[in-house]
Amino acid sequence: MIVEMAKGVGVEEVDGVVQRAKALGFQVQLNLGTDKIVVAILGGHTGQVSTDTFAVLPGVESVTRIMKPYKLASREFKSENTVVSVGGVEIGGERVVVMAGPCAVESEAQLMEAAEAVKEAGAAVLRGGAFKPRTSPFSFQGLEEKGLELLAKARERFQIPVVTEVVDPHDVDLVAGAADILQVGARNMQNFTLLTNVGKSQRPVLLKRGFSSTITEWLTAADYLLAEGNNQVILCERGIRTFEDSIRFSLDVTSVPVVKKFSHLPLIVDPSHAAGHYSLVPALAKAAVAAGVDGLLIEVHPNPKEALVDGLQSLTLSDFAQLMEELRSIAKAVGRYL
Amino acid sequence: MIVEMAKGVGVEEVDGVVQRAKALGFQVQLNLGTDKIVVAILGGHTGQVSTDTFAVLPGVESVTRIMKPYKLASREFKSENTVVSVGGVEIGGERVVVMAGPCAVESEAQLMEAAEAVKEAGAAVLRGGAFKPRTSPFSFQGLEEKGLELLAKARERFQIPVVTEVVDPHDVDLVAGAADILQVGARNMQNFTLLTNVGKSQRPVLLKRGFSSTITEWLTAADYLLAEGNNQVILCERGIRTFEDSIRFSLDVTSVPVVKKFSHLPLIVDPSHAAGHYSLVPALAKAAVAAGVDGLLIEVHPNPKEALVDGLQSLTLSDFAQLMEELRSIAKAVGRYL
Amino acid sequence: MIVEMAKGVGVEEVDGVVQRAKALGFQVQLNLGTDKIVVAILGGHTGQVSTDTFAVLPGVESVTRIMKPYKLASREFKSENTVVSVGGVEIGGERVVVMAGPCAVESEAQLMEAAEAVKEAGAAVLRGGAFKPRTSPFSFQGLEEKGLELLAKARERFQIPVVTEVVDPHDVDLVAGAADILQVGARNMQNFTLLTNVGKSQRPVLLKRGFSSTITEWLTAADYLLAEGNNQVILCERGIRTFEDSIRFSLDVTSVPVVKKFSHLPLIVDPSHAAGHYSLVPALAKAAVAAGVDGLLIEVHPNPKEALVDGLQSLTLSDFAQLMEELRSIAKAVGRYL
Amino acid sequence: MIVEMAKGVGVEEVDGVVQRAKALGFQVQLNLGTDKIVVAILGGHTGQVSTDTFAVLPGVESVTRIMKPYKLASREFKSENTVVSVGGVEIGGERVVVMAGPCAVESEAQLMEAAEAVKEAGAAVLRGGAFKPRTSPFSFQGLEEKGLELLAKARERFQIPVVTEVVDPHDVDLVAGAADILQVGARNMQNFTLLTNVGKSQRPVLLKRGFSSTITEWLTAADYLLAEGNNQVILCERGIRTFEDSIRFSLDVTSVPVVKKFSHLPLIVDPSHAAGHYSLVPALAKAAVAAGVDGLLIEVHPNPKEALVDGLQSLTLSDFAQLMEELRSIAKAVGRYL
Repeated sequence: MIVEMAKGVGVEEVDGVVQRAKALGFQVQLNLGTDKIVVAILGGHTGQVSTDTFAVLPGVESVTRIMKPYKLASREFKSENTVVSVGGVEIGGERVVVMAGPCAVESEAQLMEAAEAVKEAGAAVLRGGAFKPRTSPFSFQGLEEKGLELLAKARERFQIPVVTEVVDPHDVDLVAGAADILQVGARNMQNFTLLTNVGKSQRPVLLKRGFSSTITEWLTAADYLLAEGNNQVILCERGIRTFEDSIRFSLDVTSVPVVKKFSHLPLIVDPSHAAGHYSLVPALAKAAVAAGVDGLLIEVHPNPKEALVDGLQSLTLSDFAQLMEELRSIAKAVGRYL
Repeated sequence: MIVEMAKGVGVEEVDGVVQRAKALGFQVQLNLGTDKIVVAILGGHTGQVSTDTFAVLPGVESVTRIMKPYKLASREFKSENTVVSVGGVEIGGERVVVMAGPCAVESEAQLMEAAEAVKEAGAAVLRGGAFKPRTSPFSFQGLEEKGLELLAKARERFQIPVVTEVVDPHDVDLVAGAADILQVGARNMQNFTLLTNVGKSQRPVLLKRGFSSTITEWLTAADYLLAEGNNQVILCERGIRTFEDSIRFSLDVTSVPVVKKFSHLPLIVDPSHAAGHYSLVPALAKAAVAAGVDGLLIEVHPNPKEALVDGLQSLTLSDFAQLMEELRSIAKAVGRYL
Repeated sequence: MIVEMAKGVGVEEVDGVVQRAKALGFQVQLNLGTDKIVVAILGGHTGQVSTDTFAVLPGVESVTRIMKPYKLASREFKSENTVVSVGGVEIGGERVVVMAGPCAVESEAQLMEAAEAVKEAGAAVLRGGAFKPRTSPFSFQGLEEKGLELLAKARERFQIPVVTEVVDPHDVDLVAGAADILQVGARNMQNFTLLTNVGKSQRPVLLKRGFSSTITEWLTAADYLLAEGNNQVILCERGIRTFEDSIRFSLDVTSVPVVKKFSHLPLIVDPSHAAGHYSLVPALAKAAVAAGVDGLLIEVHPNPKEALVDGLQSLTLSDFAQLMEELRSIAKAVGRYL
Repeated sequence: MIVEMAKGVGVEEVDGVVQRAKALGFQVQLNLGTDKIVVAILGGHTGQVSTDTFAVLPGVESVTRIMKPYKLASREFKSENTVVSVGGVEIGGERVVVMAGPCAVESEAQLMEAAEAVKEAGAAVLRGGAFKPRTSPFSFQGLEEKGLELLAKARERFQIPVVTEVVDPHDVDLVAGAADILQVGARNMQNFTLLTNVGKSQRPVLLKRGFSSTITEWLTAADYLLAEGNNQVILCERGIRTFEDSIRFSLDVTSVPVVKKFSHLPLIVDPSHAAGHYSLVPALAKAAVAAGVDGLLIEVHPNPKEALVDGLQSLTLSDFAQLMEELRSIAKAVGRYL
């Protein structure tokens, strides 16, 4: 249930709503907007309580039910766009924020070369995987702690924020030591233990859509992060599993206007994992920017042919630089910049 | 099998290849390119014949097998882009061709108002359905012959080419009397009798992708048209069926670079049927243009709320005009015009 | 809208309902049950007419709206199971009816050998394709008229009813000359022109589910047949397209209880097209019988390795005979016989 | 790579293969069959090593590459069926093992009533969720530790083994204290940290298929468990996500013969989560047994209408008892017992 307070109400009125909710066994989240305060009343059984329970309280302007399963990620709870701020970079504002780098951190030389080049070409955030969730236990699983150290080093040397994936709920602090943005991967979108721990960290989070999750399930997974009071959440569309077999995943470009319509959270697109092949990445990246995303997550490798993971989908440094030029024109055409 | 002739060969050499192929029971199609001639050797059993059978013939430069099931629609058969010309409008060239109009022709007033407005806003082709394939036999099935008459009238009055759907293989001539482009709908993409008859008509064809057809199946369906010697084929992506339930179909934007890579045929996108809701159409249309399509097929209705079919996905005349403005910027950003 | 007449009403009362419906521009279908008469009021705009319009008429017991898009195929219109009778074989009764034979009719020898063997093993209907809808125009398209002649010959020689596919709406009479059951293939499930013509023929029809059609769309397609007054309709589940790539189609066994719950039409399963591989056919056939189907459609070939179409999914004659034995046990375990 | 040792070889020969593999940086797993020993050579780069490297070693009979991504779960590594033994119950043998109980443990009374009834009806294992992974953070998340205590109590009172889900990689020991079989849920099928920890526990594991995971991905996930030397792995099919919307998930019955063909692991089916509605459960359960599964996982609740989780898909105690009777006939028809 969403309780909108009247403009200019004081602390007591808001507290009155909160106390009533807690007395009924519900959880509560506040959205302190610039000109109004919204209280979300949360719990499995809010449907059994009349809206009048809250509507009669002093200072309450309106009470409405959210029929969707997600509450905190919804526009009903927060109508203005959320902007996530990471080391001076704003995600969800006018700039289309490009996050780029290698799929996996492989060596200091590889990471530094990539970091320098993507920054030079205009990327605002460096990506790189230290813990790699791999389909087979016998594949390269990432450099792990060593990878985190290299990411921390690149961050400092090139003064660029870093995004990297966390896979173990008990590694959140460890990864947060090296990363500005914690990435929750597609396969972990409904790993609720991980979501809860990442939410508690209060760090900016990049939440990838599960490759077979509906948009509703994705936004409801975001609620696990938001429920811990962490509202630094960035959504990332990375392609869905369909019957089409000429590509690895079908980029669900339709999710862009749908998410923007129903949620206040910033949204970026990962064209590399969707495509699975470098030659398809530019078209998907351009489509995403034209559709209105707030950023892109792109795999770039100094030498894709020798990449340990996903080399086929990585752009070379020069292809990336050229793509950035092309994206600038598209961003401009939709009233943004890159 | 694809037989590339050497530059400058004469009629006899080409004929030699054709005769050898026919003697073996195969069909043959020629691609007379600007600087070379390619002969496609077609049939279910080409795999049982050695490439040497043709390689030894005079004037043959190379012989290669096409492993994909589609042959005539492939870049191997024809490397340069096909441009389809309809009433002075070129589809597959530099211009992004917008085809717009109502889902179904409902009345003279409705059609004429729509036709005037879409032409005014910059659409190059008028769309409108006379025969409507409907899921239920008890739904409005279109004005049929009467609808065709109205389309012919609009075409003449506004001097704009018309695209409309044909559903019965035995109605091809009837529909061709009123339409410049014959549309084969998604549900008929593998209606091979219809494809063969439409192919025989030698009219430009718009072949919609079946909503659960792979790109390979779609291009192979195009081969049914091309096999009849009709190379005026335009492909149309209109969304695929996935698990996502917030939209009607998921626009497969990935098909744009994939089709462009593997086929020479022009490709347009129908964002209206994918979205199923007018509010999502602009983002999808922009994404498609940025991804590199040759045109768009957009539903526009003077009064969407009273539309007999698919009103929810139709743009109003003014929303359409505004979208055209926005699309112009995107087209320019990717080196095209609208 | 479904109008249930009171028990024992006369012709005038029923006619009164029919006349009122027609006066309002609706179509009408009657279900003359053993102890009551049901009138379906059909049309795109029944939602705009109050149920009272009919409820007040003499002899009317109740009026209810069907919210599902299919009407005539629904249990609301006809609560008792439909039994289709073909040459003495009842489909939808206690017997599990097995239809078996080659995918395509290839020669007299092949067809006669298969027909004799499947009849001997207990099949009740002979299957065999004369017109084959093929993905590529360059694949074998069936023996066409010649194939029909062979089917007619086998039918007479072995005194077994025949099911074969019709693909051109204008070939219905031709095919009906050789076949007891007209098959509408999966790719033509929404070929509404074909459905209408097949419906008009009044012949028993086997309507395959489109491989990406929902059960609701399938039953609504059946309405096209039933709307022509043809109630000899058999549904056939043959697998749906999913992301799973180890088989050709995923047999949707869940459709068995769902169809039985919502529709009165008999339902059979084609395990051969779902599996795409002979080794998987027996398990699927057994699962279908245990789940409660009324029959099976199985591909059997005297020499699968040399089959022109789909040899990999065909059972040998001896494997088929063995499977029939195993199916008998399962049928018995669920209170049926084979 | 799979190294098959000759019959009757000694420890030294096997050790020679193991040492060579380790010297090359590979991992090794042994399958000590009744009449031969097989050594799996594992690692991301086995493709770069010639099979001769091992073929020349003494005692080696043959060396073959496994092209599939899963190795230890494959029939190539272990041709005979694996039988998992839990408290005297064998899963993968002749008996079809039914595991039944409530979706979530809600109270002592509810669990004890269910446990008594399912045992009485012939269930061999008691199921019940203590930790519930729920889509929304505001839904009931299970009784957690309290639920485990109740399960342990039921296990003792009714002398029946217990299966329950573990969701946090760091809770494995805790859950193993109360459960005989650790369940890894569908949403965690690719939670590799959890898989590794569960594998290390050496406890029998029930690995549910992710609802959008291919069979290949599922078997490769099993490799994470097997790689830790835990070969007590039971697979559980529970329905896949498709476009069909009349049920919650489409039971992929085709996975039964496919898994049996490619893997040695026992396989059970969960018809309750697939169906999402109690009325569909019996047909799916029967289909699964006829197709050849080794067991079933069925939700049963003393009072489904008041269930806190998934009541709609739970059978009543009496419906379950009746289903067990019907399943006995099917099991017998396929040469098994229940």
